[in-house]
Order: sequence, then C-alpha cells, then structure tokens
Amino acid sequence: MIETEEEAELKELREQIAKTTIELMRLVGERNSLASKAGKLKSRAALPIDNEQVEDSLVSAVMAECSRVGVSRSAGLKILNTLLSESKRVQGGAAGKGVESPMGAFAKAKEMERLGKKLIRLDVGEPDFKPPRAVVEACCDALLSSKTRYTMPRGIPELTSALQGYLKRKSGYDANEDEVIVTTGGRFAIYSAIAAVVGEGESAIVIDPNWPAYKDTLRQIGAKPTIIRTTLEDSWAPSVEKIAEAVRPNTTAIVLSYPNNPSGKIIGSDTFNAIVDVANDHNLTVISDEAYVDYAYKDCPSVLHSKAKQFILAGTFSKSWSMTGFRVGYAVSSKHVVDKMLDMTSLMLTSVPEFIQYGAIKALESEAVVETNSRTMKERIEAVSKELDGLDTLEYIKPDGAMYIFPRAKQQGFSASAFATKLLEEKSVNVTPGTAFGEYQNSFRVSLGQPKEVLLEGVRRIGALLG
Amino acid sequence: MIETEEEAELKELREQIAKTTIELMRLVGERNSLASKAGKLKSRAALPIDNEQVEDSLVSAVMAECSRVGVSRSAGLKILNTLLSESKRVQGGAAGKGVESPMGAFAKAKEMERLGKKLIRLDVGEPDFKPPRAVVEACCDALLSSKTRYTMPRGIPELTSALQGYLKRKSGYDANEDEVIVTTGGRFAIYSAIAAVVGEGESAIVIDPNWPAYKDTLRQIGAKPTIIRTTLEDSWAPSVEKIAEAVRPNTTAIVLSYPNNPSGKIIGSDTFNAIVDVANDHNLTVISDEAYVDYAYKDCPSVLHSKAKQFILAGTFSKSWSMTGFRVGYAVSSKHVVDKMLDMTSLMLTSVPEFIQYGAIKALESEAVVETNSRTMKERIEAVSKELDGLDTLEYIKPDGAMYIFPRAKQQGFSASAFATKLLEEKSVNVTPGTAFGEYQNSFRVSLGQPKEVLLEGVRRIGALLG
Repeated sequence: MIETEEEAELKELREQIAKTTIELMRLVGERNSLASKAGKLKSRAALPIDNEQVEDSLVSAVMAECSRVGVSRSAGLKILNTLLSESKRVQGGAAGKGVESPMGAFAKAKEMERLGKKLIRLDVGEPDFKPPRAVVEACCDALLSSKTRYTMPRGIPELTSALQGYLKRKSGYDANEDEVIVTTGGRFAIYSAIAAVVGEGESAIVIDPNWPAYKDTLRQIGAKPTIIRTTLEDSWAPSVEKIAEAVRPNTTAIVLSYPNNPSGKIIGSDTFNAIVDVANDHNLTVISDEAYVDYAYKDCPSVLHSKAKQFILAGTFSKSWSMTGFRVGYAVSSKHVVDKMLDMTSLMLTSVPEFIQYGAIKALESEAVVETNSRTMKERIEAVSKELDGLDTLEYIKPDGAMYIFPRAKQQGFSASAFATKLLEEKSVNVTPGTAFGEYQNSFRVSLGQPKEVLLEGVRRIGALLG
Repeated sequence: MIETEEEAELKELREQIAKTTIELMRLVGERNSLASKAGKLKSRAALPIDNEQVEDSLVSAVMAECSRVGVSRSAGLKILNTLLSESKRVQGGAAGKGVESPMGAFAKAKEMERLGKKLIRLDVGEPDFKPPRAVVEACCDALLSSKTRYTMPRGIPELTSALQGYLKRKSGYDANEDEVIVTTGGRFAIYSAIAAVVGEGESAIVIDPNWPAYKDTLRQIGAKPTIIRTTLEDSWAPSVEKIAEAVRPNTTAIVLSYPNNPSGKIIGSDTFNAIVDVANDHNLTVISDEAYVDYAYKDCPSVLHSKAKQFILAGTFSKSWSMTGFRVGYAVSSKHVVDKMLDMTSLMLTSVPEFIQYGAIKALESEAVVETNSRTMKERIEAVSKELDGLDTLEYIKPDGAMYIFPRAKQQGFSASAFATKLLEEKSVNVTPGTAFGEYQNSFRVSLGQPKEVLLEGVRRIGALLG
C-alpha cells in the first residue's frame, strides 16, 4: 500500500500522541511513588493524609497551567481529581464516605419492627401525619381513570402550572414554565441539582451539621464538599467570613438548607443575604434546600427572595404534606440548569408516576393541612424542649424550625454511636448519632415525627439511660 | 519556626509532587497541540476524527504502562478518557449523543395533543392496555391505609419475596433476598446496572438497533458503547464472531435485549449461549434487559437460564402489565452488584413509592392479564404485518416478539427523520425514525401500543404518504 503524504504525516503524529500518552502515565506512576514516600513519612510523623492547603494550591496551579497550555479547566480538574485519588490509594487512605448513613440504622430498625419488636422511632426523618385526604383521593381517582402512563420528564403541565401558581401565591415568585421541574422526591431534586452545577474535581460548600445527601452526592460525582462547621456554642450560625475564606478556586456552588436538619436552625435574612453576596462575588450557584419551609417558627429566608444570580431551589411534598412515600418533589432554576436536570430525569427515570402528579396538584391546594401539621410540630418542639430542660445530662438549642432536636451530651468523651446502639438495645428507642451529620460525636438527632406522648416517653428513656 | 527533619523532607516531596503535577498538565497541553495538528490533517484529507483502532491500541498501551508503573487500571482509563475528550474538543468534534432521542418526539406529540390535535401515536413504547384492576385496587387500598412512607431502598420485603416466588415460578430461578432489588422503573434498573459494572473510560458492547438508553447511559458515565450492528438482511441476528472480535481491553459488559426493541428479534438459545460464552471468556457482565419477555412468540432465552458467570437481569412491570406510569421495575444480580445499585437508589431516590409496591405484588399474581395482553399483541403483529405486506414501498422482518415493527423504506436515500416529520404534519401519525436506534436512516419504528383499527389506519396513512 502506498501512503499519501497526509497519511504518513498522520501516522507520525499519532505515534507522537501515543508516546506522550505513555509518558503521561509514566509520570502518574512517578507521582504515585512520590506520594507513597510522603505517605510513609506522614505515617511516621503521625500527620494526616489529607492536607486541604496543599490540595488548594495544587488546584490553583493546575488551573493556571491548563489555561497557559490550552487544556480545558474541566479536564485539568478531572485529571487532578484522579491523581489525588491515586495519592490516597497508594497512601492507604480510603476514598470512602467517612460518615454514617441514617439509612443504615433505618434499615436495621425496619427489620426489627418486621420481626415484631415495638420501637420508639425517633430516628426517621418523616412526619407521622397522614397525607391529605384530598391527595389520596386524587391519586385513587387518577389510578381508576387510567392516568397510568409515561409523562414528560418535566411533569404533567397541570402540575407544573399548579407549581407556578403556588410559587407566586406563597413567595410572590414568577417562574416560567421552563424554570420548573417535578422530581422523584427531594432526593432527586438535590442529586440532579448538584450534578448539574458541580463537576468532577470541583467543590461545593456545605454547612455542617447537615443531612448527609449533599456530601454523599458530591463524593459520588467525584467532587469535594468544603465543610463549614457550626457549633452549638454559636447557636449553629455559620460565619460569613469563614464561608468567604472557604471558597476555593474550583468551588462552584454552596448548599443552604434552612430550616436545618438536624439542628432546626433558621438563619436571619441578613446572614442569608451576606452568604448570597459571597456566592455572587465568586459565581457560585446557591442550592437552597427548603424542604422544611412550612415548619418554620420564625421568618425563614428563601432563595426566591434573595439576589442570588444563580440558584436552584429544591422543594418537596414529603414534609409539608407528609407525603414521604409518594416520592415527589420539585425544583426551580434557570432554564439552562433545569434542562440538565431534565436530561438526567429522562435518562434515569422518565417521570414521576402520572397518578401521583395528580395527587400533588391537590396537595398544593391543601393549605389548611399544612397549617395543622405546622402547628402540631410546633407543639411537639415546645413539649420535647420542656422535657429536655429537665435533663441536666444534655444541652441543646431550641429549634427555630424543621422537625428535629439535636441535643449534645455534657459527658466528656461521649460517643453518640455507642449510645444509640445501647439505647436501641436496652430501651427500644432509635435516635440518629450526630456523626451522620458531620463531626458531632457528642450529639444525636431526635426526630419529632411521632405523637407527643411517644416523643416524651422516648425522651424519658433517653434521660434514664444517660442517668 | 523550626522544621523537623520529617517536615523538611515532606515539604521537599510535596514540591516534587506539585512539579510532577504541573509537568503532567503541560504534557496534556502538548498532547492537545499534537491532536489539533492531526485534526487539521484529517479535515484536509477528509478522514473521520474517531478512529477505533487507534483508540484501542492506546487503551492497551495505557493499561500495560499503568500496570508497569503501579497506577491503578481505573485511574489510567479515567485519565485516558479525559485525554480523548480533550482531543475531540480541540479537533472540533462534539462529545454529544449523536442519536435522536425518542423522548424529544414524545414531548412534541404530547404538546400537540394537549393543544387539541388528534394524532395516531405509533411512536410511544407503551401498551395502551389498562393496568390490571387488582393492581389499581391494591394501590388505592394501600393509599387509603396510609402505606405512604419511605421504604427500604431494596423495596418492601413483601414485594422482594413475591419477586423471588415469581422468578422461581416463571424461570425456575432461586434468587436470594439480597440478590433482588425493586427499581424506579426499568430505566433505573438499567442505569444503575450499567453504572454498577462499567466505569469511566471503560466500554460495553451494545447490539444495534436498540433502545437508546444503554448507549446514553454509557456516554453519561464517561464510558463507550462498542456497537455491533445488525441488519434486516441478516434478520437482525448478531454475529457471535463479530462480538468476540469487538471485545476491547477495557470492555466490562455486554447488553442483551431480547425480544428486541425496535426489531422484535428473538435470538435462538444457541446464539444466546455462544454470546454468554464470549462474555465468560472475557469476564464481561451480561446485562440482560428482558422488558418484553411476555411478548415473545417463540422461545426467548433468559440470562437466568444461561451459564453467565456475572449477570444482571433487568425487569419491569411496565410492559407485561401495562404499568408504564407506575415507574416500577426490578433487577436480579449478585449481592455485590445489587449492593452498588442499592447505594445509588438510596442516594438518589430512597425507594419506590410504598403503595405502588403493594400494587406490584398484585401484578405478579395477575397472570391471566399478561396472557391476554400477550395474545392481543400477537394479533396486532399479525394484522399489521398483513397490512404491510400490501405495501411494496417497505420491507420488514416479521417480529418474533416485543411490540414494534421496524420497516425499512426501499427508496434510495430515504430519510426516516424527514419522513416522520412529514407524516406527523400531513397525516397526523407519529412514528420514531430509525436513527433513534442506531444508524438506520432508512427505517422507522411502528409501535403496536394502539388498538388494531388505529394501527391499521396508521399504516394505511404511512402507505399513502410513501406513495
């Protein structure tokens, strides 16, 4: 075969490309050797494997070099992410989650109940209220009239339009139809929101203590949560300065979640707006999970009222209407972001079941139910707080909202995990250890998703075990 | 500050690591320059950007080098994947899908119907049958008795146990409880199955024509579909030799889907078993999508009866029981794989709605409904085939199963996409162009999810437009 000049040239170029590729892999191997040496040194000197500062300066240097040599930012960050995982691997570090999932304990409790054990469930993040009668009936009607087909990934137009009306009525917010999406529960709203705006090798700010899904999602997509820790001493209020300082060169989003699970904290609108300003200054998307918006006992700022330039509101029917087992939520964002979320929905799920969407429309009209649920939760917060006030083994901040209390044991060296296990075994009470929500070994979460008397009995048993 | 010897040494190592990292990025830039030159050359010489052979040899070389220098296989493949994407970017190639999604046309048709247009919908992959009455009633009963809570990600034990019984009864297959998972539709079964066994930079074999979800999922997770093309001339039968040759060094799975959507093909158990042998020889996981198992009009091999060493069966309630809008499916695999799928479910979705799971149990008991649906579909295949036989503008293979016919226009240079648009505009009939299922510009899919008379009228209009 006679090669043309172009073919010969192409062959030569391909050989050079292959050589460069292999040279790249050789360098990765060399980098691993260096990292392995550093690991042994750190182990000898008892230094931690992770060093945020070292990573941050690598991120900056990589981004600068990529820009200099014409490599895309996302490719550079992805490769760096793989290099950092390799470093950890050769140093014997786990890439694992590092947090305890409330779901593990949940499965265990469900299994015990199935085997006939009577438990006081202060662990599960779902209200015990019945879903609105109108919702149940609308679902049944829709089922009986064969509303049992695929729908568009965005949701049926009747529901997206009802959501637009609801957002307008409740928050004075005008959303276009293409800025709204119905999601498979709050979970998929959060998952697809984070996956839409945070790429592999990038980072998002998360304020602890918090529901683990944000951090778990970030880790699953190869991104890094940058954690801002809040404490009981500071009444769980985040420092805006610390947030501003925590913005790394590869940070693309910040997750806000007020009323907060597990602390019940609601931050003031001054703080909320100051955080939004930080986000705007650094082009971060504000992802605001407002799942507990209707269990708020002081004014709760919403991202819909903020000046956030880029935001995603994640909402759910689970808490306000006690519809956890319906798996339906929604999100509001720019068309560009919603389109990405639609692509994921389309690929992984198709849509929320059609008849459930008809039920969701009725939920949006069931305002009285929400008010009743909210009032009941407020009474529970008051009653459980009063009961906790009688225990001098615990300290806590009375929640501003949500449906949890997050007490901390005064005892030095207290392990909430060990305590939770003992509490379940000896007192048949489930709580979630604080380690599920961040570095809170001394705290545990009490969910208020049970009738008042059950809650009080649970707290009494907690008190008895603490002594 | 006085540095210890270890600290000084660590500092030195970190500087070397940083230098190596930057050197790596510089090399990526150099590789991009070479790729850009190659791109210009290819463009001048009118050569395609992609070259499978070149990529394959890179994959092999990278894997060998990684093994030599102590870099993990997955890290090497991930980095190579990013390098290849960068090459395509600088060469102006799109990383996009390249296939037309049936969902786009679906949304368009739904919108037209909403605006009052009467259409003959031969595009949608869902049966028009009502779901079994027992299923609807079970869902309503469960709703009314407040089965409206979170369940374990695997599904309620009553349903997983019913699935075990069903698998035993129907396929003689004994699945352990931890080998079964209830999924949010067949889509999430497929998505999580593929994501569980195919990593970024890896590859899976897909036989075309096919439902686009397998290829879309692979691309979404940064993996590559290796496509085996089948043709009408070969009655849509794949060549086992071609499959064996197509196994690349980074291939980890093969997707089988019989009865096939869109061709209706069912391969013989000899071919099925030969493919399974290839998979076993190369340690591939066989992902078998058996969504249309009950619309099979000749013996249809199941992976449950095969000798596959590693497999995932994806099943769904959508087709057999006409429950598309319930979004419930299931999967069977080893505990190890199912655990990975559970992690994804837990993170993204929590569970399938509780009351729907109670409905699904009743579906498994509704065997008579399945038989009726299957018989009706068979009649439609016969009737539509007879009608098509009268059109000498089309050729087709009579389907062995599923609920589609995939005819091909005899006309040279026929564009199914243009035809589908014209058919919708002039005749109010929707079909899905063959390009949605692979490189089949001359073919289109006729879905049989409509009453016989509607189907026949639709085919008549197709015939009229073809002339």
